Order: sequence, then structure tokens, then C-alpha cells
Amino acid sequence: MKIAIAQLNYHIGNFEGNVSKMLEAIKWAEDQGADLVCFSELATCGYPPRDFLEFDDFIKQCEEAIQGLTAASSNIGIVVGSPSRNPVIEGKDLFNSVYLLHEGEVKFVQHKTLLPTYDVFDEYRYFEPSTKWSTVLFKGVRLALTVCEDIWNVGNDNPLYTICPMDEMIKERPDVAINVSASPFNYDHAESRIHVCKANIERYQIPMFYVNHIGAQTELIFDGGSLVMSPSGEIFEEMPYFEESLRVFDLNDVKQGSQSVEQPKNKILEIHDALVLGIKDYFGKLGFSNAVIGLSGGIDSAVTTALAVRALGPEHVRVLLMPSQFSSDHSVDDAVALAKNFGIQYDIIAIKDIYESFVKELQPLFGDLPFNVTEENLQARTRGVLLMAISNKFGNILLNTSNKSEAAVGYGTLYGDMAGGLSVIGDVYKTEVFELARFINTERELIPENTIVKPPSAELRPNQKDSDSLPEYDILDKILYEYIERQQGPKEIVALGYDEALVKRILRLVNINEFKRYQTSPVLRVSSKAFGMGRRMPIVGKYLS
Amino acid sequence: MKIAIAQLNYHIGNFEGNVSKMLEAIKWAEDQGADLVCFSELATCGYPPRDFLEFDDFIKQCEEAIQGLTAASSNIGIVVGSPSRNPVIEGKDLFNSVYLLHEGEVKFVQHKTLLPTYDVFDEYRYFEPSTKWSTVLFKGVRLALTVCEDIWNVGNDNPLYTICPMDEMIKERPDVAINVSASPFNYDHAESRIHVCKANIERYQIPMFYVNHIGAQTELIFDGGSLVMSPSGEIFEEMPYFEESLRVFDLNDVKQGSQSVEQPKNKILEIHDALVLGIKDYFGKLGFSNAVIGLSGGIDSAVTTALAVRALGPEHVRVLLMPSQFSSDHSVDDAVALAKNFGIQYDIIAIKDIYESFVKELQPLFGDLPFNVTEENLQARTRGVLLMAISNKFGNILLNTSNKSEAAVGYGTLYGDMAGGLSVIGDVYKTEVFELARFINTERELIPENTIVKPPSAELRPNQKDSDSLPEYDILDKILYEYIERQQGPKEIVALGYDEALVKRILRLVNINEFKRYQTSPVLRVSSKAFGMGRRMPIVGKYLS
Repeated sequence: MKIAIAQLNYHIGNFEGNVSKMLEAIKWAEDQGADLVCFSELATCGYPPRDFLEFDDFIKQCEEAIQGLTAASSNIGIVVGSPSRNPVIEGKDLFNSVYLLHEGEVKFVQHKTLLPTYDVFDEYRYFEPSTKWSTVLFKGVRLALTVCEDIWNVGNDNPLYTICPMDEMIKERPDVAINVSASPFNYDHAESRIHVCKANIERYQIPMFYVNHIGAQTELIFDGGSLVMSPSGEIFEEMPYFEESLRVFDLNDVKQGSQSVEQPKNKILEIHDALVLGIKDYFGKLGFSNAVIGLSGGIDSAVTTALAVRALGPEHVRVLLMPSQFSSDHSVDDAVALAKNFGIQYDIIAIKDIYESFVKELQPLFGDLPFNVTEENLQARTRGVLLMAISNKFGNILLNTSNKSEAAVGYGTLYGDMAGGLSVIGDVYKTEVFELARFINTERELIPENTIVKPPSAELRPNQKDSDSLPEYDILDKILYEYIERQQGPKEIVALGYDEALVKRILRLVNINEFKRYQTSPVLRVSSKAFGMGRRMPIVGKYLS
Repeated sequence: MKIAIAQLNYHIGNFEGNVSKMLEAIKWAEDQGADLVCFSELATCGYPPRDFLEFDDFIKQCEEAIQGLTAASSNIGIVVGSPSRNPVIEGKDLFNSVYLLHEGEVKFVQHKTLLPTYDVFDEYRYFEPSTKWSTVLFKGVRLALTVCEDIWNVGNDNPLYTICPMDEMIKERPDVAINVSASPFNYDHAESRIHVCKANIERYQIPMFYVNHIGAQTELIFDGGSLVMSPSGEIFEEMPYFEESLRVFDLNDVKQGSQSVEQPKNKILEIHDALVLGIKDYFGKLGFSNAVIGLSGGIDSAVTTALAVRALGPEHVRVLLMPSQFSSDHSVDDAVALAKNFGIQYDIIAIKDIYESFVKELQPLFGDLPFNVTEENLQARTRGVLLMAISNKFGNILLNTSNKSEAAVGYGTLYGDMAGGLSVIGDVYKTEVFELARFINTERELIPENTIVKPPSAELRPNQKDSDSLPEYDILDKILYEYIERQQGPKEIVALGYDEALVKRILRLVNINEFKRYQTSPVLRVSSKAFGMGRRMPIVGKYLS
């Protein structure tokens, strides 16, 4: 038997586009002599469809998509994820299901059992968990079909769950396990997936086809890396990351484990590729081509620009340099050098006159009050308005350049440097931004060395340095990581050896700046805990603040 | 037996404040001779604590709060909601529990069974549902304790659930039902609560004490209105809405149904009071006193200002008038009249010079391109920057003045008129804003009549009217209501008699403007479906768009 994996990039709600892409893949698989072709979780409607699932019209379109695929199944089996309706009145209205289509009919449907409802996942908001498990015979081969999370409780080792669907299915002695997934990227997750697939094989001793979604959906980046596992527990093939891929596998080869194709793993490379895909799909799926970025001469906007150029092409990225009286000479030089290195359009607008017109008009209200953060924010917001004017006039999406460290402690101006349609590096700590810059410069100096080595500064008042207000980034980032990714409290973090007053100050800054993060753009997620939909915090609270 | 209800305003994560408020209420109840005093759901930590629940340190503080209350229970029983840890490794780590404290001990704990995971609720993200139900004897009276949603599946009539906790508890023949709730306001919800309480009484024939939280937590406004129900099914007392309240009830009186105290119901009055509380608590709980509002002379900023004055006092509200060359004379006059009517500070800054300095600096880039939405947005954003400068300089929170109709269709400028820390009327349709204005003017003309009767206009280009770009609000709002609140699809809405092209255009506008709403401030929720945490939509999608 030949089984094809179609690792495709879907678009939420774009039924016509998703189905036609799948029909092409079906045709390709047939041409390759495949008996079965497998798509990923909720492939008809794209993942995650979120509250669109609450619209009956949306579910009808999912059903029509399944009908369209069923009609194409005369000569090939199709495994595909799609919502299905719960016929029982009690419980949620929908199941998150995997279908087997063949001979122009729906041959089998298995519903998802384990519904992730944590971090970025809200599945129990929409879906009823399955309480029935069975396998299906396809051309003499018995298939165990599961959906994503269903294989993440191997023998009930996961404390979140009490049911192991594969433990139930294995009773029917399936020959092959197929899992349809929509598992989003974070820089540790590919290893986890391989680990969990191996744990499944070790327990069930059958070959496994793990089909993942590839493509970014707003903040979530699905990285692909679909897996074919031999019953020995070895990887038969790890499919590419961050790109669509169609492959056909002979089940006998997989059983024998006659090859072992793996992909390279490197945290910074993966983050780089994830962010490039994240930008590309945000633009492509919204129907935009062009980006605008405010280029300061600092490292954050330099790295963001580099990633945008790789995602969209140099002809689709323009930058605006907006020096003020507080900008250092080298800032403009560094920014111009970068623009030239990447061959992108750059313009320069000095903000002094606009800034001064604001100050003049506000003078009757402000009187003799001293220069403070108000005037710093005025500069940042003047820049935000200029960038948005270019965005509006030329149809470029403004890319935000805030990093995770500054977003965490609120070191940024709402509607100023925090503006933009998409936050590219908002889940990348400053210390990792430096690593990204070095990575981007691997082959040649695209980002000027001076941009990388000079002390970070917002340049909003004379001789300002980030380190005037913040601890050094190597300390700050470690404390933030313990609090944000590892959810450690102040006592646990201090116990790691950090200064108590510093820890309290940083945690307080994180919590009191929730109001700023609430209003920022979606943040491309590359870590296990990004700001945004996966981290839901009260604004009006008084905890560690 | 005397049972006290303490309908209090908690603050998320402010354990010290919450406990000391409860200790005062306990003392008051003791002084009144109460045997038992009842607080609401998750009263120790405030509701909803959201992802703070994932921090072990936060749960420890909840436990310490329960210890503090237990120590005060020597002479009075205390019923109170608080998280508790799940001792079993499988499943979520926490329960959402109700405690009975007495004689310095935890006498009984019952966990919540029905965990709302829809709209604004994420309870299954954190909590394991209870699978055990029992009652507890307190001073010879058998109590059935439940938490909020637990009473919303009377005899399994709610299609969402398959368990009815009270059906289980009634087997032990309890004498009294006590439900601790944190049920947020919407303008239909008080009626629903009375209805569900009556349905419970009808089925179980015992008196019921329904204790609700009062107070706003960012966007969610808890309205109180705690209920005491006689076993006959009549309301014995409906406690006040939108204010803290302590009451003691003699159980014999309740059993006899010797009184029937109800509160008046009026949609616009309730919305008014809810928004006033929403503003008041947002400021109070964040430690701010003063608001700033951009006053245009139009109805949205007029109503927002009126509500702010009622929440904070006239000395704590200042407004800024920012006329442009496109502002009509009456706009400034109307705005000044309103400021004088309310006795609040107003300043005027004409934006012409700043706007022109932006245009001048952008000219080398824009060349001869015609005036379009870019220049309209430049004006709106200039105003946003000025308002934020006042916010920064004087410590005033900027209140946003967008209404639900314009937020829905994206008729607003990001970082311009969409700026602000809190959206006051972002869940109020334009037609309801008019009703609110009339209501505010009930006793005398506070909002100038001209502001109410003139055709709505953004005044961003010569002779602009909202109706140039949008259908009349009475049509628009009805279509939006069907789509947003009633989740009807295009076919269903057209079937109601609306023009198909218009319906499609409006639904498309709603969907393509998700990116704008994503970046706006929290919206005070007064309807059953507000923008924000209760409506989770993909940005990158292609559905009805």
C-alpha cells in the first residue's frame, strides 16, 4: 500500500482555496499511485477557525467541502480533518473529526478525544470530546485514525488527561496509525513531537503517519515537519519544515525502516524561518504585498527589516528613517547602510518640526512643566503617525519592531513604536534578537556591525541608554523567561540567585504593563509562551504589582 | 437561622484588600446576629483571575486568604468561593470551589461541576469539573452549596451539559440552596438569572440564596442583584444592582415568603449604571482618578463624557476640543456648551498647524497624490497624539469614545479616535447611544440638543456625513445585531428582509476590520456579545470577506 502525506498551507475560512489545493494534491497522489492521501486537522476550514465555528453557515461550508472531497475519492482514499456536528443535543454542538473518504463515500469518522484548552488552544470552547473509539479497514489494512492531541497521552502519562485513545484503538489491532495534526511551532516543539511519536511507536509497535499543517495563521505558525515512523521506533522520514510538501511512502518500506531522513535542528535557524513564514503568510493571506518599517539604526528594526525582505522581497519593503535632535549620527548612517545592503527603498523625514509643532500647541496647557516621558512619547508617536500615513497612502502594512523584553516590561510607546499590523519579533527576547542578527549576517554583513555592537538606546532624550532604565538584557531576559515561560513566582526566581528587589521590580513592570500589550498587534509566536492569545492576564488586577 | 449575604466588590489578586473587606462584612454580620454569611464565587482572588491561576504563588495566596477567613469563623459560618487544588494527578490542577468555614475550621468543600467555556468564560482552561456532590449540615440546617453555572442546568434542560448538580444534592434532602456566583452583567441577564432561580425553586421547593459579585474587572461588569427566593418560587428579596450591599435574612421569613422586594428593570438605565460602574472601577482599581476625553461636539464623546463625570466627578474629567478646518462651527459651540453644563475643564487646541506640518514633511513622498483617507487619518491621529500627551503629562487615562456600530464596521482610525485605555461605549450601538443621550438628559439638557439631532459626521473632510459611507444606523445596527449577537449568517439575515448586497457588504466590513478591533482597548461589556475576550475571531481569514 502507498500512503501519501500532503503537508499543505490552508487559509482559515477560504473553503474554495483549501479544497482546490487539496484536489490538486489528490490528483498528484493518484498519479503517484497512492492508495491513500492524508491531510491535516481541520484542513477544510483551516486551523484555528475560532468563533467562526459558532456560525451555522460556516459549518455548512465545512460540510460542503467534505462533499467536494468525497466526490474526488472514487479511486483513492482520503484522510482529512474537518468539524462534524454532534447529533446528540447534550454537550457542545461540534466534534473535531477525522474523516476517511473512499469510493465516493464517507467511509468512517473518528472524533477527537483530547481537546487542548490551555495556552493558545480553546478547543473545549467549541468541541465535544469523543467517548467512542474504533479503527477502520481500508484495502485490507486496518487504520487507527486520531486527531493531534489524541496521541499526546501515551498510556495516560499526561497528567492533563484520563483517556488514551490509542490504548482503546489498539484493542482492534490496527496495522497503521495516522494522526492528523495542526501543531503550532515553538522552538522546542519539533523535538517534543518526535519524542511523543516515538513513545507511541514504542507502546503500539505499528508504523505511524503524523500529518502536520504548515503555514501561518495570524500569530500561530504551523511548521509542518510531518513524520513517518517505522514500527522499530525510528524516524523513516521527517518532512521539511516551513514549506508545503507532498510525499508518497510505500508501507512495506516504512515497516522495514529502510531509510531515516531527518531535518537539521537549530533554534535560531528555526526562529528565523518561522518568522519569515509568519510575515509571508500574514501578507499573502490578507492580500497585501508591501511592508513599511521604521528603521532607527538599532538592532530590532534592523532584524525586522531583514526578515521582511526575506519574506516579501526587497522590492516590497520600504523603510522610513525619522531622526530627531536626540538621534546620534551613526543611527542614520547605520540605517542607510542597512537599506543599501538589502537594496530597499528608504526615505528620511526628520521629525523635529512636527515634534516642535506639537510642543508649541501643547505649551499653553503644559506651561513650565519639565521635559519628561510625555515628550519622549511625542517623538515616538510622531513616528507612528508618519509610518501609518505611508501605510495608508501606499497600502503597505506597518511591521512592528518591538522585542519581547521591552514588550514585557512596557519599555515602548503605545501608538508610537508599539504601532503596526504585526509584531515580528515580539516573542523574541533581546538577547535572542542579537543571535538572529548574527545569524542573518552568517554569509556577509547585511546588518551593519555597529548596529549590533552599540549599546541599545531608544534615543528619545540626550545620551539615553536602555540600561539607564532597565537591567542588562542578559539578566532581564533570564528573569522574564522564568516568569513568563516557566510561570515561576517571585520566591522561586529569587531562589535561583537573582536580587530580590530586582525580581520584584521586573515582575511588577510586567504586570502593570498588561494594558499596553492588550492593545498591540498580534505577535508571531515562536516560544512556548508568547504574549497574546496564549497568555490571558487581567488588566485591572493587583498581583505582584 | 439568620443568613447574611455580602454582595461585595473584589479586586483581582488584591488578597489583602479582599480579605479585609470580607472580615469587615463578617464582623457586621456577627453584630447583626447572623449564623452564616455568604460571599461570592472566587471571592478571595477576585473573578476572573485568568492566567494568574497558573501561578503556584497565586494559589498559595488564595489558600492563605481561606486560612485568614477560617480564623474568623469561630462564631459564624462563612460560605465563600475560592480555588482549591486537585489532589489527583490526572485532570486540571484546580477546582473552582465553595467552602463552608465554621468554628475555626474548614467544615466542607464542594467543587463546581459546570464550567462555562464559551463567550467571555474560559473555566475549563483552569478547572477540573466536580464528579462528587454532597450537602452539609450546619446548625441543624442542611445546605446545598453550588457555584454559579451549577444551577444553570435545571434537570438537564441546558443542552450544554449532561449533569445537574442540584439533582444529585437534592437526594440528601437539603433545607436551603446557596449559590455563590460571579455572573457578569448584560442588559438581558438579570431577567435570565431570576428565571433560572425560579426554575430551581420550582423543581426543588427549597429556599435559595443566590450571592452575586458586584464590581467591574476591566471589561466585565458584575452587577450584583443577589437574590433570596422563597420556596414558593417568589422573590423574597432582589438586592440592589451596581452597588455593594450587606443584608441579613431570617430563614423563617424567607420560608414564609413574607415579603417581595424587587428592583426596577430598564435597559437603558441598566446600561447607564453599568458603564458608570465600569469606568469607576477601572480607574479605582488601577489607582487612577482622572480622565481625559477628546470632545468633538458629536454624540459619542458627549455621552462618554457624561458617563465619566458621573463615575469620577466633574473635577476629575477634562476634555480637549481639537477643531480642524473641516470642523463645523457648531461642533466647537456644542462641545463648549457640554463642558460648561457639566462644569468640567476644557481646552481647545486647533490641529491645523500640526496637521499641516505632517503634510509638509510627507509631501516629498506623497507628491501630487490626492487627499484621501490618509489625510483623514492624519487628523484623527494628530488628535490621538495630543490626547495621549495630556494623559502622559497629567496622569489622566484617555477614555475612548468609539461606539459598537463603528467599531463593528471599522469606521474609525487606529491610534486616532480608536485610542484610549478603556472603551466606554464600544458595546453600545449608535442607536442605543442616542437613547443613552436622551436618558442622560432626562432631568435637564446636559447634552446639547444640537449634538443629539444633527446628522452624525466624522468631520474629516468637507461636508462629510457618516451616511456617505454607511447605511442609516437604524438599518446598520439591526443587521449588526443579527450577525454579532445572534450569530446569524448572510442567508438568514437576508431572509429577514434586508438587501442582500447591503448585508454582504456589512458582514464583510465586520470581518475585514478584525485587525483594528484586535488593537483597541478593553470594551465595557453590556450586551450578550461584546467585542473583546468574548468574541474571538481570526484576523487572517477569508470568510464572508
